[in-house]
Amino acid sequence: MTETHEARIARLGIQIPAAPALRAAKIQMARKLGNVLYVSGQLPTIGSELSFVGRVGENLDLNQAKQAAYRSGLNVLAQARAALPGGLDDVISVVNLRGFVACAAHFTQIAEVVNGASELMVEVFGEAGAHTRSALGVTNMPHGVVVEIEAMFEVR
Amino acid sequence: MTETHEARIARLGIQIPAAPALRAAKIQMARKLGNVLYVSGQLPTIGSELSFVGRVGENLDLNQAKQAAYRSGLNVLAQARAALPGGLDDVISVVNLRGFVACAAHFTQIAEVVNGASELMVEVFGEAGAHTRSALGVTNMPHGVVVEIEAMFEVR
Amino acid sequence: MTETHEARIARLGIQIPAAPALRAAKIQMARKLGNVLYVSGQLPTIGSELSFVGRVGENLDLNQAKQAAYRSGLNVLAQARAALPGGLDDVISVVNLRGFVACAAHFTQIAEVVNGASELMVEVFGEAGAHTRSALGVTNMPHGVVVEIEAMFEVR
Repeated sequence: MTETHEARIARLGIQIPAAPALRAAKIQMARKLGNVLYVSGQLPTIGSELSFVGRVGENLDLNQAKQAAYRSGLNVLAQARAALPGGLDDVISVVNLRGFVACAAHFTQIAEVVNGASELMVEVFGEAGAHTRSALGVTNMPHGVVVEIEAMFEVR
Repeated sequence: MTETHEARIARLGIQIPAAPALRAAKIQMARKLGNVLYVSGQLPTIGSELSFVGRVGENLDLNQAKQAAYRSGLNVLAQARAALPGGLDDVISVVNLRGFVACAAHFTQIAEVVNGASELMVEVFGEAGAHTRSALGVTNMPHGVVVEIEAMFEVR
Repeated sequence: MTETHEARIARLGIQIPAAPALRAAKIQMARKLGNVLYVSGQLPTIGSELSFVGRVGENLDLNQAKQAAYRSGLNVLAQARAALPGGLDDVISVVNLRGFVACAAHFTQIAEVVNGASELMVEVFGEAGAHTRSALGVTNMPHGVVVEIEAMFEVR
């Protein structure tokens, strides 16, 4: 028998947090349309606390920014789990990630930062975690955090 | 009987402009695929006139940038109305908005700016106006305007 | 009889390169879901070589950046061709492009740059190449290239 996603997450000891609360009343954190689940851009918050504030290449280094992308990825998973009746076992595959990175003008290792979220998806979903992706270095994210990750999942 | 979206818009006195013209011959302002309508990134133009040129935190303040997001949102609605046979009554729900904000390096109230468009969607569509969202602070938009908003609608 | 897309490409002499290789093991360059093909953000690489490194308005001018967008567009087509059993003849239409441009603070001809990719789509697919679009000026792309283009195609 194939291991379910949730069983794999438990076995690997990946700690997916509770889904971060709404930032504003009119925003949905996740939304299913047909067999696609859209997840709003997630910040690297830890619970309700801001973390990873700043820019990579200024006050944060590549490793810290990659950790922030991993944390944003955990929040993406938290939102997906909360939105799906069967939790992450309802995920068939990860279709797309977009990763936005607040960076200094000279910093161009944007893809390496976003890998923090991409690697998490493969860790959690195996082959079903491979996805299309765009990665961009920008000026600022909401609240001044260093990374924002949005996602599309194929779901049951 | 439930009030239609167009009736609600009329009752609330929301003035949706004529759909801004194409910026280039090869671009479509809106495009239906299955039950999804994709709307191209809309600028805060007023008719054919550029407005809200600059960056928030430099020559524009939060309130002005939020007004620009509201104006871009009106143009999103104008494009959707023009593209749908039944106008905005063909909208079932707002699925996703992406808001891009030209900002100074120190300005991080990106979400507050994009709320100008998000609040408009809820004003117009009620509960069906809640949506997933990403918001980013970037360097420049086309023509140097401060905000660009793109959207996905679920439609009949 | 209508000319196929591949026949038109051959007749016009448009040279679509081999699909650029994966930048990272966990990323897919293209992914079909239902009748939609999502293509990951493509850089203006020529084969495995980086080119068009820098920012428009700094070390690159509008014309060079537009050429970079054309080159990124060719790589989008290369990925789509490699991902579809019938090659580009399986494309029904281009639904959406997003164009990201690394630019100097004073440079606002973002749309003109992205036209390099948009015009290519119309050249290749004719009327089926018209698409919705967003265009943004940002700080940096992966590897410091000047343009990144992502795409959605309606496919058989």
